[in-house]
Amino acid sequence: MELKQALEQLDALERKRFAFGAADGSIYLDGVTVAPRDTSAWRGVAMSVLAGESHKLITAPETGELLDFLWERKEELDGKCRRRVELLRRERSQLERIPTEEYMEYAALTNEASDVWHRAKETSDFELFRPVLEKLVAFNIKFAGYYDSSKKPYDALLNEYERGVTMEYLDRFFGTVRERLVPVIHAIGEKEQIDDSFLHLHYPVEAQRKFSDYLMEVLGLDRAHCTIGETEHPFTLNFSSGDVRITTNYTEDSLADSMYSVIHEGGHARYELNVDPDMDYTCLAGGVSMGVHESQSRFYENLIGRSEPFIRAIFPKVQGFFPQQLGSVTAEQFYRAVNRAEPSLIRTEADELTYCLHVMVRYEIEKQLIGGTLAVKDVPGEWNRLYKEYLGVDVPDDKHGCLQDSHWSGGSFGYFPSYALGSAYGAQMLRNMEAEMDVWGDVARGDLSRVSGWLKEKVHKYGRLLEPGEIVKNACGEFDPTVYTDYLTEKYSKLYHL
Amino acid sequence: MELKQALEQLDALERKRFAFGAADGSIYLDGVTVAPRDTSAWRGVAMSVLAGESHKLITAPETGELLDFLWERKEELDGKCRRRVELLRRERSQLERIPTEEYMEYAALTNEASDVWHRAKETSDFELFRPVLEKLVAFNIKFAGYYDSSKKPYDALLNEYERGVTMEYLDRFFGTVRERLVPVIHAIGEKEQIDDSFLHLHYPVEAQRKFSDYLMEVLGLDRAHCTIGETEHPFTLNFSSGDVRITTNYTEDSLADSMYSVIHEGGHARYELNVDPDMDYTCLAGGVSMGVHESQSRFYENLIGRSEPFIRAIFPKVQGFFPQQLGSVTAEQFYRAVNRAEPSLIRTEADELTYCLHVMVRYEIEKQLIGGTLAVKDVPGEWNRLYKEYLGVDVPDDKHGCLQDSHWSGGSFGYFPSYALGSAYGAQMLRNMEAEMDVWGDVARGDLSRVSGWLKEKVHKYGRLLEPGEIVKNACGEFDPTVYTDYLTEKYSKLYHL
Repeated sequence: MELKQALEQLDALERKRFAFGAADGSIYLDGVTVAPRDTSAWRGVAMSVLAGESHKLITAPETGELLDFLWERKEELDGKCRRRVELLRRERSQLERIPTEEYMEYAALTNEASDVWHRAKETSDFELFRPVLEKLVAFNIKFAGYYDSSKKPYDALLNEYERGVTMEYLDRFFGTVRERLVPVIHAIGEKEQIDDSFLHLHYPVEAQRKFSDYLMEVLGLDRAHCTIGETEHPFTLNFSSGDVRITTNYTEDSLADSMYSVIHEGGHARYELNVDPDMDYTCLAGGVSMGVHESQSRFYENLIGRSEPFIRAIFPKVQGFFPQQLGSVTAEQFYRAVNRAEPSLIRTEADELTYCLHVMVRYEIEKQLIGGTLAVKDVPGEWNRLYKEYLGVDVPDDKHGCLQDSHWSGGSFGYFPSYALGSAYGAQMLRNMEAEMDVWGDVARGDLSRVSGWLKEKVHKYGRLLEPGEIVKNACGEFDPTVYTDYLTEKYSKLYHL
Repeated sequence: MELKQALEQLDALERKRFAFGAADGSIYLDGVTVAPRDTSAWRGVAMSVLAGESHKLITAPETGELLDFLWERKEELDGKCRRRVELLRRERSQLERIPTEEYMEYAALTNEASDVWHRAKETSDFELFRPVLEKLVAFNIKFAGYYDSSKKPYDALLNEYERGVTMEYLDRFFGTVRERLVPVIHAIGEKEQIDDSFLHLHYPVEAQRKFSDYLMEVLGLDRAHCTIGETEHPFTLNFSSGDVRITTNYTEDSLADSMYSVIHEGGHARYELNVDPDMDYTCLAGGVSMGVHESQSRFYENLIGRSEPFIRAIFPKVQGFFPQQLGSVTAEQFYRAVNRAEPSLIRTEADELTYCLHVMVRYEIEKQLIGGTLAVKDVPGEWNRLYKEYLGVDVPDDKHGCLQDSHWSGGSFGYFPSYALGSAYGAQMLRNMEAEMDVWGDVARGDLSRVSGWLKEKVHKYGRLLEPGEIVKNACGEFDPTVYTDYLTEKYSKLYHL
């Protein structure tokens, strides 16, 4: 085989993998946005076939030969090409341990589980979800062994979302966070609470939709390449660096829910749209890891979106969208209201300060579930116990408890810690950005272009060209979670006059 | 190989074909409904790969061996299974003459063409569309040769949409239609025109959306299995007998456009939802041919939807949706208005009587294009000449002329005659239905369940189990286009007191 021919085969392989992935994404997106209710059956069939074809493709002997051939000539390959071969070989060596049938069965299961979870959440019926959750946990324990049997199962899963991260690492990280933030949370409990009642007036969906369009404009999201849809659980999905979709969920008695969900998903979209388009249709396309991805979404959501300069910049416009509700509110009152810290039930609606405690509950439960020390049937009890212990709140029902998130129904165990890690990465990126440019001057003018430019240069443009750890080092320097806890302590000390 | 094993392989083959088709459908649907504007590039890549995989699958030597093995044992197969093997063999023998690369190239071209056509139509710029249309015509001429080189190219294409139909057959059919209907159209030209001005008041989109929901309810379309979206050109897309999507296009200065487009697409959906679900995920699923499909859509649109009993049944509700616009209009005035016959520019908005003339224009142009006697660059001129000759109208621009339909951009040459044939089939079905049940008593009560039941038994449930000709015979008896022309002559003679 000639090198040139091998490289053409590599492109063809990647385009096929892209097509199967994009097809799966399109069917999923349709399923959770516009598809009629009782139609999940065919999606299960189609997604299972597509997963099977994709699996067969990467594990085929010819693929192995092609990748080995290219790896032997890696000195002759350019950097991007070498990295593609490296990543594909890594994925192949992992996936070839999973039998195709199991892989297909799992794809059908997650499609079914998504449907069952939606119904279970609607009716707050954990028993309905329990049998599929049991299957999902069993599959993940098995897959963890396939991924890396030398690791503890949950470590093997964590490594999928953030390469190199382990329970030991997270225990230490969460230990620091808990030790430093819990006193702040307690201190706030003693203070007068911020009034955010005006955020819970009636906010008609139609006006909120227009507000979302405005927020996307502020984030610099080009609508010819990015749309917004509506789903139960907001998410971002990318087809290419030129086509990214975000979704939100409107509730008429809350302005901040959708507002910050749009800015959060907008941060994910900002990342995907900034990836070097040269890498489209290859395994280098897209964000590098869930931790780094969440660092970007939570950067925009909190570090920028909940900052005083940002609120002051957009507030006149916000008032314009909701004159009746906000006509007599000041920018400062609005800033304080969107930063009200209070232990609560729902992670996605939690404030910046208590957020990590929500993540810790999930982390503790996943550790035990995948470690085999907690049965699925006992998840609601354990969930409620931990919410009481960590956040001091009583969970009234499973809809507001262990059924609130979509992640497990999609088969994601080990994802949640990414949110907390990402938040911490983001705080460090902000410090470094501040050292290089006048971040807050720009934000005060509502101009986020240089912020996006900085993140593009340090993080986004690389896609998966570098390892997550390299990207973090690139943008943060040595990772130090106290930068994050210091940032929060300072912000909330001011807000609550501690 | 054991028969049992071969049948399992047949199922696996069909599921793969289903998955590739459903993936293509999902990507297409997304592209024309919610996708951001400048994103067609990745869809071209993905759809081309999926077309290639699907093509490779059906033309693979193993597939040939499997189908031959089963065909040799056809006496041992049940009816459905035998038919599946028959259809797959037929498709295989056709597709194996098309090289996979050409097939993939064509899939990418139709994706691109859809995008270009949209832009060309928006700006009425035929020159923008011309180069892709030239490629599409060239591909279709080549494909016609692959399909059946013993036939004239356009005959080979016609056969794809309605097996057995030829130019000779259509020339005779259209000859009858023209000979019998043109005098009626001329006679109407001498009479006082019906007032339909109240159909062109301001009809807000939001109210029209609710009206669509009501119409879907009247048609008995279960919303848990059928949704409605919005596109430039309305269409119906089915994923399975349990998941069918229709789309419409709202214009605020016309009530009838979307109303009849919803009933038309609803007729297509009624068909797909009535197909025997046992045949899901096999090549027997879905409507049997475009002619039969259009017979159903136009049955609901015109024979039922533009009938006096139907209008009388729904009119109080229609007034409820649009009290300001229709408060002082009577059911009879509304009935007459939605049946106003008048030569016009746009096929999809044409009345029942002049509709076939619109189809004839396209038929004549396709005959010449595929026959090689008309160059693509001369299409606008020929289009305008034929509209003047057949309908007596001057075409002001290509947006209202040869750029109005999406069919050619999707690669469909030979589809249009199906609309006219379908209309004629439908008229005969109605006559037979009337002989067996009190159609108009049901319709007058707004109850279409027995109508749907009759069509299900005679047409829908079979999917592709029978040939189109058998279905037509089943529901119509011997095909006789004068039943159709008599129906129209009688209806319009009454309406216009001829």
